[in-house]
Parts: sequence; C-alpha cells; structure tokens
Amino acid sequence: MAEISSNYAPLTVETLPARLGRIDAISARLGADISAWQCVEVGDGNLNLVFIVSSPAGQVIIKQALPYVRLVGDSWPLPLKRAYFEYHALIRQAARDPGLVPEVYYFSEEQAIIAMEFFTPHIILRHKLMARERVEGLAETLGNFLARTVFRGSDLSMDTAKRKRDVALFVDSVELNDITETLVFSDPYFDAERNHHTDGLGPIVARLRADIDLKVEAHHLKAKFANNAETLLHGDFHTGSVMVTETDTKVIDPEFALYGPMGFDIGMLLGNFWMAYFAQPGHGNDADYQAWILEVVADVWASFTAEFSHLWRTERTGILYEESMYEGQPLASEQALSQRLSMIWEDALGFAGVEMIRRTLSLAHIAENDSIEDEALRAACEARGLDMGRQLVVNRTRMGDISQVNDLAQQINKGVSL
Amino acid sequence: MAEISSNYAPLTVETLPARLGRIDAISARLGADISAWQCVEVGDGNLNLVFIVSSPAGQVIIKQALPYVRLVGDSWPLPLKRAYFEYHALIRQAARDPGLVPEVYYFSEEQAIIAMEFFTPHIILRHKLMARERVEGLAETLGNFLARTVFRGSDLSMDTAKRKRDVALFVDSVELNDITETLVFSDPYFDAERNHHTDGLGPIVARLRADIDLKVEAHHLKAKFANNAETLLHGDFHTGSVMVTETDTKVIDPEFALYGPMGFDIGMLLGNFWMAYFAQPGHGNDADYQAWILEVVADVWASFTAEFSHLWRTERTGILYEESMYEGQPLASEQALSQRLSMIWEDALGFAGVEMIRRTLSLAHIAENDSIEDEALRAACEARGLDMGRQLVVNRTRMGDISQVNDLAQQINKGVSL
Repeated sequence: MAEISSNYAPLTVETLPARLGRIDAISARLGADISAWQCVEVGDGNLNLVFIVSSPAGQVIIKQALPYVRLVGDSWPLPLKRAYFEYHALIRQAARDPGLVPEVYYFSEEQAIIAMEFFTPHIILRHKLMARERVEGLAETLGNFLARTVFRGSDLSMDTAKRKRDVALFVDSVELNDITETLVFSDPYFDAERNHHTDGLGPIVARLRADIDLKVEAHHLKAKFANNAETLLHGDFHTGSVMVTETDTKVIDPEFALYGPMGFDIGMLLGNFWMAYFAQPGHGNDADYQAWILEVVADVWASFTAEFSHLWRTERTGILYEESMYEGQPLASEQALSQRLSMIWEDALGFAGVEMIRRTLSLAHIAENDSIEDEALRAACEARGLDMGRQLVVNRTRMGDISQVNDLAQQINKGVSL
Repeated sequence: MAEISSNYAPLTVETLPARLGRIDAISARLGADISAWQCVEVGDGNLNLVFIVSSPAGQVIIKQALPYVRLVGDSWPLPLKRAYFEYHALIRQAARDPGLVPEVYYFSEEQAIIAMEFFTPHIILRHKLMARERVEGLAETLGNFLARTVFRGSDLSMDTAKRKRDVALFVDSVELNDITETLVFSDPYFDAERNHHTDGLGPIVARLRADIDLKVEAHHLKAKFANNAETLLHGDFHTGSVMVTETDTKVIDPEFALYGPMGFDIGMLLGNFWMAYFAQPGHGNDADYQAWILEVVADVWASFTAEFSHLWRTERTGILYEESMYEGQPLASEQALSQRLSMIWEDALGFAGVEMIRRTLSLAHIAENDSIEDEALRAACEARGLDMGRQLVVNRTRMGDISQVNDLAQQINKGVSL
C-alpha cells in the first residue's frame, strides 16, 4: 500500500475553512471570508469523508479519502490513492460526456482531497426508486453517458499510446480492484467471512453454492473483469452513484475506476434496476411504477446502443476496426459493430447477474431490500433477484434481447422460480 | 518515444572488448584479458546488433538495441527500451521454466545491452525445418514452456498486485506492440504500403481483401491482442525464436513481450509449423518429414494441455477460479479448466490464422517460403497457407480438435481449395 504523507490530516468541520480558505480555486466559489463558510459532514457512504461547504457565494463538495474503510474502521486499511484515481476518472469522464459528472475545482494528492461541484437539489437515484418517483430523461442520459465513456475510453477511439499510459496509471489501483474482485466475484459463492443474508434464503443459498455452472461462469466473468482492459470504466456504476432531480441526471463517485470490459458498468446498472424492480413489493407495490423501471432498463440499453453505434460510425479513430481496412465495404464495419454490441450485451447480462447475487449474499446489500422490514417479504424479493441473477450468469449467451430479459423478470416477479 | 542517453553508443567489434571488459559478470565468463576476446557480429535479425564474443574461457552473446529498425534504417525509429522489456521477459521466463531461455549475465538499460548465454551448437528451428531434420523432444519442450509461462504469468498463479505492477511495466512497450498490431492484424487486410506478396497470389489476395468475415474476425482478434492482458507472452513466438540441436530446444528473443491473451504465443507457433508444412514441396517434398511436422503440432498442443492441466490442479494460487470457491466440488474446477482450455484453443487457432496470412502478405515473410526459387511453386505453397489461415480465423470456434485441424491441413495440401 502507498505511503501516507506525514502532512496528511483528515479534515473536520472545524479545521476545513482554515485549511482550504487560501486555495484560490475554492475561495473563488465560496468567497475569501471563511468566517461565512458553513460545513456539514454528510458522508453516508462506506469509505470517505464528504463535506458540503456553503457560503452566501456558493456551495462546494469536499471529499477526502481516509486511510481505511470508514464503515469498518482502521482494521480495514485502504489507500488514500483512491482519491487520485477518482480525480483522474472525473476529468476523463467530464471530457467524454461534458456536464454529467461534478466539475473538479481542486485536487490535492497529498491530502487525498477533491473539491468539486455540488449537485442540488439532486438526490441519490436509489432513494428516488424507493419513493416511486420518475425521472425524466433518466434512461437516455445514462445510456448516452455509458456509450460515450465506454467508447471514448477505448482503443476504438483513443490514441493507443495514450491509452496504454492510462492503463498503467489505473492498474495501480490494486486495493480497490481487490474489493470488487473479492466481494463481487468470489465471496457470494462460498462461505466467506463477510457474507450475510436474510433469514429464509438459506435453501436458495445452499442451492446456489452447489451450482457448479453458476460458480464456473461467475469466475469466467471475474477473469474478464480482472484481465480485459477494454475501456476506462466507472467501476461502481449502481443506482447509488447516480444523482437525480425530476428532470436531471448526474453521475458521481468513480473511485473504483479501472480499465475493464465494456459491459461491466452497464451490466451493474441494469442489475441494480432489476433488483429495484423486484424490491417494489416492499415499497408500495405500484404496478405502473414497476413497469416504468423495466421501461428504463429497456431504454438505457436502447440509448446505449444508439449512441455507441453513432460514435462507431463517426468517431472510430483508434487502432481497432480501422476504417482503412473497410474502405468501400461499409457493411463490414456494420457487421463488426453488431458483433461487438452482442459481446457487450452478453458480458453486461453476466455482470448484471453477479451484481444481483452479490448484493444479496455478500457484504454490501442495497437499501431497496434492506429497508423492507417484513423479513419474509424481503426474502421473497431477494429470492427473485437471486433466481434472475443465476439465469443471467449461466445463460447470458442465449437470453435473447432486452425485451425477452425484461419478460423473464416479469415472470419471476409473478412467482416463476426454481 | 523514450529519450536516448547521451552516453549511448552502438558497439562495434573493435570497441566491444574495451567497453565491456571491466564488467565483472562478463569477464567472469570470458577472462579479464580482453586481448584474447574475439568478436563476431552475427545479427541476422531485423532489429538489433548481436555479437558472439569468444575467448579461451568461454563464449557470451552480446545483444544491443539500435535506436531504429536495423532492416530499414533510421527512417524507422524504434526505442532502445525494447532491451529493457527483453531483459525483464528473460528473467521471468527463466523463473517460470528454468533452463529454456538464455541466462542473463548483465544488463545495461542506458546502453540497451544484454549479455547472455550463448547456445551452441544450436541453430534456428526454421532452418532445421527447411533442412528436414528432426528434433527430439521438440514438441514436449515447447508445449511445456508455453504452458508454464502462460500459467505462471497470469492471475491463475501470480499475486495479483505483483501482476498488476508487471502489467504497468510492460504496457509501456508501445512501439513494439504497435508493430504487431499493425503488421500482423491490419496491414494484410488492405493495400498497406509495406505489404508485398509473390506474383501469382493476386487473385487470392483480392478474394481475401473482399472477405468481410475474415476482416471483421481478424479485428476481433486484434481487439483481444490489444486489450486482454491475461498473461505475460513472449510476443514473437515463431520458429525463428527457437534454437535447437538434434536433442535440445531453447527459446530466445522475447523483446516483443507483452501482457496479452493466453492463446497468442501458441497460436503463432502452430501457424508457423503449418506454414513450414505447406512449404515442404519447396524443400524436397519428403512426405514422412511433412507428417512429422503435423505430429509436432499435435504434440505441442497435447503437451501444452497436459502441463497446463497439471499446473491448474497443483499451482492455482491466484485470484481466478480460487480453490476456496470449489471446496468439495473438484468437478467444478475440472469444468472451469476444460472451458478455459477451449477458449485458449479457439484464440490460438485464430492467432495461427492471422500469422499465416500476415507472413505471406505483410512486411515480414518466412524463410521457408522466401527460399523457394520457383515462383509458381512458392505461390502454390503460400496459397495453401492463406486458405488455411482464412479458415482458422473465420471458423476458429467450430474447427474441432487438433486432429481435425491437422486433417484440414492435409486436405489443403492435397489441393482442396476455394
């Protein structure tokens, strides 16, 4: 693990104004009079300190990494360098899809601090889904963001020397990658120490742990995650990393950024939507709203493919599927596109499946399920997610298109199970 | 491209003894009396200076990179850093399969010099194949070497933090990777400047360039080569990188080393054997010897799978397919093994196919064909390689096993063509 500078010190609401007040990029947003700054610590995530700093002039988010996992304490050390990866991911995402991620005002590697844009009155999408509130343009914005970041961060678009230097930069994020490699791809499939699950799921858990096809396929997906450096991913693209109003959508928190397979981010996102869908009986059971979630899933994929195809046809400047090879054969380029999309689709379904399984059996669960107090009902919602997750992982290469997969979700929701 | 140190200077047979005589690791092999050193420059490759230095005490190979491609001259610059990648590959290969690669005595990054073991009376395997001479143990040695390096350089075996640091080291080899990406995967498929081919192949070349399935599949393989950092590869594993006697086999020249897909090295090797097979009519047309080449191909694959399976069962200490997940389910581990071997097989066939095509249409051809003076005969041998290469690239996922692929080679050799 990287060394911690002797100058590193965690911020507090008391020390923050004096420590950051002389940084021009921050005082330009909040004013130089630090006595007018108000700080609130709002880090409800598992890892970091997060402050909202307000003044009559404006508002700024200050995010600082701690040298351990906040949720667990210093028994689980985690390098400060994750702020460095988040910073580098944010500036790349901003270039690839402007306006979607917080603008970075200031970054200190030594202090592991990022000062950035505060989105207000946005709330976390996961909470919106529990409150059964719709977001206009959600699917299109997310699908476009995924297509643009995935395409523009790959050898389809980038100068390959630049991409290779970037791979070297991000591959150093060993400890954050390890969290995903372990908690997402391994722990759920055996009796790992940090696992926990709702009472009542015992028989299903036993069945899944006996399912060798599931376990082998999950590890084929882990191999892809660990080795296939196709593009710069967000790395933690669930509905807790999206902030929304009724009409606006933003993306935050890319500290798990890594070079990985193109289907990973979109797969994780779809898996979280399907889990939110199955959790709806615990949040009012509004059939129209549930149907809306499946529409969002379908529209995310449709927007992703439309934008990816558009970029393929207009921005393919990298070393892969070079235009020069297909001179006078535009159909060859279309063939390559549709095959690449099929590969992304299959990977995405697999990653969606492992996400649904790990969010029910491994360390980190989802608020949509955790907040269902009736344990039997919670177990029923979670069991549906597990059933669907298993189908996606094992059968991802022959699931059909998005409408067929959504149809499967509806059948499982109606009670079709193993 | 990396800077060249102002101290860098190419060696000559005149300056070599004085410049290297005071390096203990070298004088320990050759004696301190440099007046007794005899130097011969033998670099018949395309890139570097290579000296054999002999004295009554012993013999040493001195290899030095030039800041350009030797074959072409300083119009094609190439970084000295390739000596650094070769050095790092050699010491890793030596650890993973001891005794197969030259022992490194000394390395200077500034001078791009590697002093290493001289293999004598070994000759390049490619010349042995043209002379129709057998090598005892060839297939087993190569199959084992491939299995050991591929397995032990991957997340199946290595500590993943160490592997990730290693990925960062080798991904900096941008210019060498670019040579492969361009000459192997792109140039053969369009009218690239550096292409050349034997007269008489025109109609086949036109057919291949019109073949969109071939071109799209070749680029799917290029995407794997460029992005799938599964293991540390030799990177240029053809029959010119193997040195042999009647009973001994060694592997040299890993300057193109990179992290890439597990099927790449073995695919390139098999492709070169199949080309040597098709070239035999130009070298005496000895049916027994031709059959021996196909036996070698079958035995390389058999040795590779046997050794890979052995390592899978005994050395799987990495983050992939962890034993802990399969506790009490040994069949799951076997299922994962057989599926991984299938994936390697399919990739290997594809890489064999692109190798056979590029060695006939792109810049660098093979001596087995180049040395056939009868142009019509040469074109006929090369055409068979092109036909087989095309089949391998396009149909690699449904070719059957090695015996079926060798049977295809025999049918093509008998005149079955498009």
